[in-house]
Amino acid sequence: MTPDEFRRNGHEMIDLIAHYLESIEDRRIVPEIEPGDVRAMLPEHPPSEPEAWDAVIADVDRVVLPGITHWQHPNWFAYFPANTTYASILGELLSAGLGIQGMSWVTSPACTEIETLMLDWMQELMGLPEQFRSTSEHGGGVIQGSASEAVLVAILAARWRATAGAVNADGDTAKLTAYCTSQAHSSIEKGLRIAGIGTDRTRIVDHDEGFEMRPQALARAISADLDAGLIPFFVCTTHGTTSSMAFDPTDHVAEICAANDVWLHVDGAMCGVAALAPEYRWVNDGIDRSDSYATNPHKWMGVNFDCTLMWTADRSALLGALSILPEYLRSAAAESGAAIDYRDWQIPLGRRFRALKLWFTIRLDGIASVQERIRRDVALTQELAAEIAADARFEIVAPHPLNLVCLRVVGDDSLTEQLIDRINAAGQAHVTRTTLDGRTVMRVSIGARTTERRHVEALWQTISAT
Amino acid sequence: MTPDEFRRNGHEMIDLIAHYLESIEDRRIVPEIEPGDVRAMLPEHPPSEPEAWDAVIADVDRVVLPGITHWQHPNWFAYFPANTTYASILGELLSAGLGIQGMSWVTSPACTEIETLMLDWMQELMGLPEQFRSTSEHGGGVIQGSASEAVLVAILAARWRATAGAVNADGDTAKLTAYCTSQAHSSIEKGLRIAGIGTDRTRIVDHDEGFEMRPQALARAISADLDAGLIPFFVCTTHGTTSSMAFDPTDHVAEICAANDVWLHVDGAMCGVAALAPEYRWVNDGIDRSDSYATNPHKWMGVNFDCTLMWTADRSALLGALSILPEYLRSAAAESGAAIDYRDWQIPLGRRFRALKLWFTIRLDGIASVQERIRRDVALTQELAAEIAADARFEIVAPHPLNLVCLRVVGDDSLTEQLIDRINAAGQAHVTRTTLDGRTVMRVSIGARTTERRHVEALWQTISAT
Repeated sequence: MTPDEFRRNGHEMIDLIAHYLESIEDRRIVPEIEPGDVRAMLPEHPPSEPEAWDAVIADVDRVVLPGITHWQHPNWFAYFPANTTYASILGELLSAGLGIQGMSWVTSPACTEIETLMLDWMQELMGLPEQFRSTSEHGGGVIQGSASEAVLVAILAARWRATAGAVNADGDTAKLTAYCTSQAHSSIEKGLRIAGIGTDRTRIVDHDEGFEMRPQALARAISADLDAGLIPFFVCTTHGTTSSMAFDPTDHVAEICAANDVWLHVDGAMCGVAALAPEYRWVNDGIDRSDSYATNPHKWMGVNFDCTLMWTADRSALLGALSILPEYLRSAAAESGAAIDYRDWQIPLGRRFRALKLWFTIRLDGIASVQERIRRDVALTQELAAEIAADARFEIVAPHPLNLVCLRVVGDDSLTEQLIDRINAAGQAHVTRTTLDGRTVMRVSIGARTTERRHVEALWQTISAT
Repeated sequence: MTPDEFRRNGHEMIDLIAHYLESIEDRRIVPEIEPGDVRAMLPEHPPSEPEAWDAVIADVDRVVLPGITHWQHPNWFAYFPANTTYASILGELLSAGLGIQGMSWVTSPACTEIETLMLDWMQELMGLPEQFRSTSEHGGGVIQGSASEAVLVAILAARWRATAGAVNADGDTAKLTAYCTSQAHSSIEKGLRIAGIGTDRTRIVDHDEGFEMRPQALARAISADLDAGLIPFFVCTTHGTTSSMAFDPTDHVAEICAANDVWLHVDGAMCGVAALAPEYRWVNDGIDRSDSYATNPHKWMGVNFDCTLMWTADRSALLGALSILPEYLRSAAAESGAAIDYRDWQIPLGRRFRALKLWFTIRLDGIASVQERIRRDVALTQELAAEIAADARFEIVAPHPLNLVCLRVVGDDSLTEQLIDRINAAGQAHVTRTTLDGRTVMRVSIGARTTERRHVEALWQTISAT
């Protein structure tokens, strides 16, 4: 492709995306296909000659668009909001076009420095603790690819600190124990497993009827492990659990962690960015006493995936766990914070210029537009919850302070299963099933960029036509 | 940003990228800046109001472009080729625009199925073993974000297999031992450390004068560990080491691994895609007996970062290591290969539609254009090597079968240091320093998309003006 062909094709691709997003409501939200159907529409063998742009675009229309689940659809009530704003798409495009590597400061200084600045901007915009700023004595922030990677990094930093670095040489994790509730995201168990903390040493701490961790249960579990000669090293609390958007009491948990020298990670993946609206800053209450915290602008905020923000109050533990240089080569500049080598804050070596999409979103769309959407989504969720609560055929099964409501049909689980199946099979809207306290529950997550009141009203019509 | 503003701004961004890449040769390849300089050019606090598109683009020109290291520059002889073709940029753009999540088949079927097809296409184009195809009984492929993640996944799969899955529960890695040479990429040590195999149980196997692993040294190390009651579980050979592009003798190593039931991972990150040209298929000799293999289209092939292809002959070990579902929920369809849930093949949960950029590159540019560049780069490297070899002031310190040549100035290390500093300080070209057998060496990696004979000739003029 020549530069001029790139210009022409690029303009066409921009127009294709604009048209796709403008007309997305006309599409069935989930494709009606079986495994293998997409592949069967494409040649089994690669082409021997280059193909025309028009042929490829025709296949985007014929195969790709009808073959994907439309996460940007206004009737997207499933999983979590996964918004991608126009501004962030152009930030991602610029990153791809520049084609640089941000593994260390020196391999592309602006990539590192704009990322650091964006973390500091977001700290300020969300009202996060000062000890997370890059300009603080021990803290700092980094963009990870996902909250799963953020929690793994936190686990590794905790493991390093709890063993005074010995784990890097001896790999000995035999006495380390970790703690979360059954409501924590699956990536906690996965990260612990990767780090050599099997399920035998992962304690599932009791939660209360609101699905929040019981601090006294945590204290008892830690105490029992200490008595057994084990080393409690990592606690994860969740602010906005995946199943029901429950908030663990991090303020109480932090006291227990501090008393026992345990690393506390707060997983605010799904809704931490709600703090961009001052009245929702409570979503992060207590994290001023945590060791690390992560939230996903690629969910509710609208910066396209992947963009997880992770802050720590103890960057030296991240460097200790993840720097692969021998001790005598560790950079004084990097440890002091003068120059950051983000390769030592993450699992992989290579990294894209992901800060651009966050920079573009904050500058071009402005934070007021994000606040407006957050307020709209919470209001629509509360309106829907009021309708559900007023209808005796349904019950709401968890607190719903933000943009997620969990409901079920009164009676046998099969009634709720049927309702979910009916909504999803029709293809007009999409919701997710979960299990809470052993019962089948329907989650309604409201937060797609294009969702308006009429979409939520239509969903309620569908639900209540049961 | 409205859809129409997106169209206008998007066209402008496409033009900006085209202009940047067309005129990149006019730029100093590495910015002359100190830590903090970029940040000092930007506001310390976020804007309170949305800003105009033109203001943001002005900052791209004023701050970003002069603040990055230009990896796409024709005089890029540093690290590795990190090409980003026009076709792949548009694939990445489409991925960002669609904004879907490919964590499982059901969350966006086409994302999974096109990815699987691309791995099968690449298996065919590179002449890789049949047991890596998704249609084989036990194998398959996946796109990872980086070769670091690929090797970590391989280590975890190996760990699972060596412990018959027990590690997921007991986290016991105390007896596991791993093997590579000092020339293996740092991500091997990092991945092993993450997985709970510290440096105490990572054996650095001797290499020969060509920096290739000595199979007999490996056999002795494994034997000694077995005698000591340890469990050798993982060997990594490298095809194209980072420092000198050496090739470990995987065929011999594979015999040793097979005899001792050890997982063999082959790291072909830097140059495995050379196999796209049939005369260079030897770069992957021996991998038909490996358990896993990875190579990076985001290096020499030109698919923009991130795009690491990883294949395995034992997908059940990946699923065993990385699926977070309890046993009774593991999907029969996924294990049989009918529907793949790629979340269980990788570290994070979320995933982008990365197959699009590979699909676009293969179809729009065609493999012949990649073959042409590979042949050109190897030829230019051999021409440069001939010039160096004919000049008694220099010595070539490692075999150079492909696109990397390692040289030094005869005499004290400081002479080579000075040469590297002189080239890099001038800002017209960029090379990397490494150490081989304790001596300072200058690496010249030839493979930027836009590099022509004149660029290599100019580099030789600069070198020989010593």
